[in-house]
Amino acid sequence: MKKTKYIEKKIQIVPGFSWFGKNIGIKDDTFDFGGILSDTPCQAAAVFTKNSMPGAPIIVGKEHISSNGKLQAIIVNSKNANVATELKGVEDSKQICKLVAKECGIEENMVLPSSTGVIGVRLPMETIAKGCENLANDFGKSEAHIEAFAKSIMTTDTRPKWISAKVGDCTLLGIAKGAGMIEPNMATMLCYFVSDADLSSEALQGMLKRVANKSFNRISVDTDTSTSDTVVLMTSSLSGSVDEVKFEEALEEMAIYLAKEIARDGEGATKLIELTVSGAQTQDQALRTAKSVINSPLVKTAIYGADPNWGRFVMAIGKVFDYEVDINALKIYFGKGEKKLMINASMLDREIVSLDDISELLRQDEVFIEIVLGDGMYCETVWGCDLTEEYVRVNAHYTT
Amino acid sequence: MKKTKYIEKKIQIVPGFSWFGKNIGIKDDTFDFGGILSDTPCQAAAVFTKNSMPGAPIIVGKEHISSNGKLQAIIVNSKNANVATELKGVEDSKQICKLVAKECGIEENMVLPSSTGVIGVRLPMETIAKGCENLANDFGKSEAHIEAFAKSIMTTDTRPKWISAKVGDCTLLGIAKGAGMIEPNMATMLCYFVSDADLSSEALQGMLKRVANKSFNRISVDTDTSTSDTVVLMTSSLSGSVDEVKFEEALEEMAIYLAKEIARDGEGATKLIELTVSGAQTQDQALRTAKSVINSPLVKTAIYGADPNWGRFVMAIGKVFDYEVDINALKIYFGKGEKKLMINASMLDREIVSLDDISELLRQDEVFIEIVLGDGMYCETVWGCDLTEEYVRVNAHYTT
Repeated sequence: MKKTKYIEKKIQIVPGFSWFGKNIGIKDDTFDFGGILSDTPCQAAAVFTKNSMPGAPIIVGKEHISSNGKLQAIIVNSKNANVATELKGVEDSKQICKLVAKECGIEENMVLPSSTGVIGVRLPMETIAKGCENLANDFGKSEAHIEAFAKSIMTTDTRPKWISAKVGDCTLLGIAKGAGMIEPNMATMLCYFVSDADLSSEALQGMLKRVANKSFNRISVDTDTSTSDTVVLMTSSLSGSVDEVKFEEALEEMAIYLAKEIARDGEGATKLIELTVSGAQTQDQALRTAKSVINSPLVKTAIYGADPNWGRFVMAIGKVFDYEVDINALKIYFGKGEKKLMINASMLDREIVSLDDISELLRQDEVFIEIVLGDGMYCETVWGCDLTEEYVRVNAHYTT
Repeated sequence: MKKTKYIEKKIQIVPGFSWFGKNIGIKDDTFDFGGILSDTPCQAAAVFTKNSMPGAPIIVGKEHISSNGKLQAIIVNSKNANVATELKGVEDSKQICKLVAKECGIEENMVLPSSTGVIGVRLPMETIAKGCENLANDFGKSEAHIEAFAKSIMTTDTRPKWISAKVGDCTLLGIAKGAGMIEPNMATMLCYFVSDADLSSEALQGMLKRVANKSFNRISVDTDTSTSDTVVLMTSSLSGSVDEVKFEEALEEMAIYLAKEIARDGEGATKLIELTVSGAQTQDQALRTAKSVINSPLVKTAIYGADPNWGRFVMAIGKVFDYEVDINALKIYFGKGEKKLMINASMLDREIVSLDDISELLRQDEVFIEIVLGDGMYCETVWGCDLTEEYVRVNAHYTT
């Protein structure tokens, strides 16, 4: 774990941005509709799900952001993902952008839409149209408005997620939601970063891609890839120029913080797992081994049960068929700092390490594991969570 | 589902083969040690796990079968997998073969060893050596002996698994174990086929590879790949020559039957899922899509809860990033025969299909699903099981 230099675990207000979050009755009486609006057009960048069946908002969002690299508003509904809804779903998402643009006096293609919730059901467009009436009045710049927005995008998240940072005169704020829905469905990740720095959309796109790859692409709750995943970065330029290197460092810290929060709050999760694979022969081997271990149901259930059964790690390492690993060189460390404990094959006969001590480390809220594959120079860190009965419960027992 | 022509769900005695299964006290008082012995040396073939961290018995078994393509005995212990046990584990497996060979008056390299159970713990060699004393007396040719063997290889299997077939004058018998262990650990698949047909080891190897690919390589319990998976085919030639095409057909039916039994009896499973993906543009697309869906935790939990949420299927289809699928061409069928129900994107607005009726089909012990991707000519069938709280329970709450 690197020490962080920029982030603060609180909301900091970014000049020029307004927010709202409210209930419009899409499903029940919890917040289900939220938005971000900038006083001025923003340079913007976005990364979207790789799922080849993306939701309608993804299709519309890509179209809007690619038209000129700018955005001025984001509009989000929860409780319905507008996915697998055919061409009508795309029309619905465009209609929402149109309504928002009209109410806020901006261009339609400056609005990026997101939806998260149940799949395969048309959006209740009448309800949403009603929710858009006099929308400009809903927006506000206070901390309470930002908090309401953070709550409005939640599904089965147990808590809202935010992080902020200062770089020179500029402020960054990130709001995210993670795994799960009120009507449990697929885990969708949405994350919005705003700042008042002056940066081009090309610079933002490069940064966001690199940062997302080191953060959101390194977490896993259950191997399923949502059709709605969206990360957006908008900057208004109000605070003037900024050191790009520091800005990207701050953005990376924020993204890693939020990614870990999402993993920690995964459906049914009781623990955050931080796993580092080092000593790999290639970057590909490091990442694929890390993903194989962090995604293994048997590793995830072992960690849930605090079972110090290192054999499951060996199995998951061996599932990456393309690479050979020497069992005699392999070392697995549990914990971190002074409490770090190592186990390897040559220790099996001897009582060098106490399995009870390893079990104790696995009982913590944050579980740290390092796998040293050999003497290679490549390493990767990923984050995940344990697999519990509650994950099954939340995803199985649900009546449409 | 093709109609089967050869198989019978009972034990049929194969002339020339003896069996035993007994308790030697490796962990508790359930059967933990079993063997198969042929009166004469057999032509043999085997396929093993692709896991790059194979157990010691795999290393020894490969060495023995590759020396001359022959085997005369198989020796199996449960409760301990002899995996991740360094070079000493290989010595232990060789020592067991030596003991069995001496007791049975055969060559050491004619014995194939298997172990299944906890990983990372040395075999209790004194207990096993004691269990090998006067081993020749334990072997017998009766149905009871075969049943005892089938039980001795079980771990968290809830029932023994066998299947038999007749092809001309020759008899085939298959015994398998599936997912789980008494001390829950990774799901290991072991399967032994014996016959009295006269076939070369080259012919057997070709058949076994093709058949395993259509059966055992098409099932999934939890995406984890055991370090011990082993499928062996031994033929004694006592009944003379056989029609090779029919023999392979019978072997394939047996293997598919046992593969389905393994999926049905997966850890915590309440349902067998048979999933066919058709209309694919390539064989690779058909298989990868089928595996993506059958392995998706959100699909597996939805089926467990009989939730007719077709969106999860759409998501899992879309996770195969390399292929584009037209959502408007996609069709998903539930059930089979007259009760088959279809759902697709264009039906979402209309009340053409009752979700309650689909839920009813998902409540059956055997769930049949067909996904039609488009108008391509390729299809694949795979088998799996649902994901339940019991899977988590059996794999999490276990103290070493």
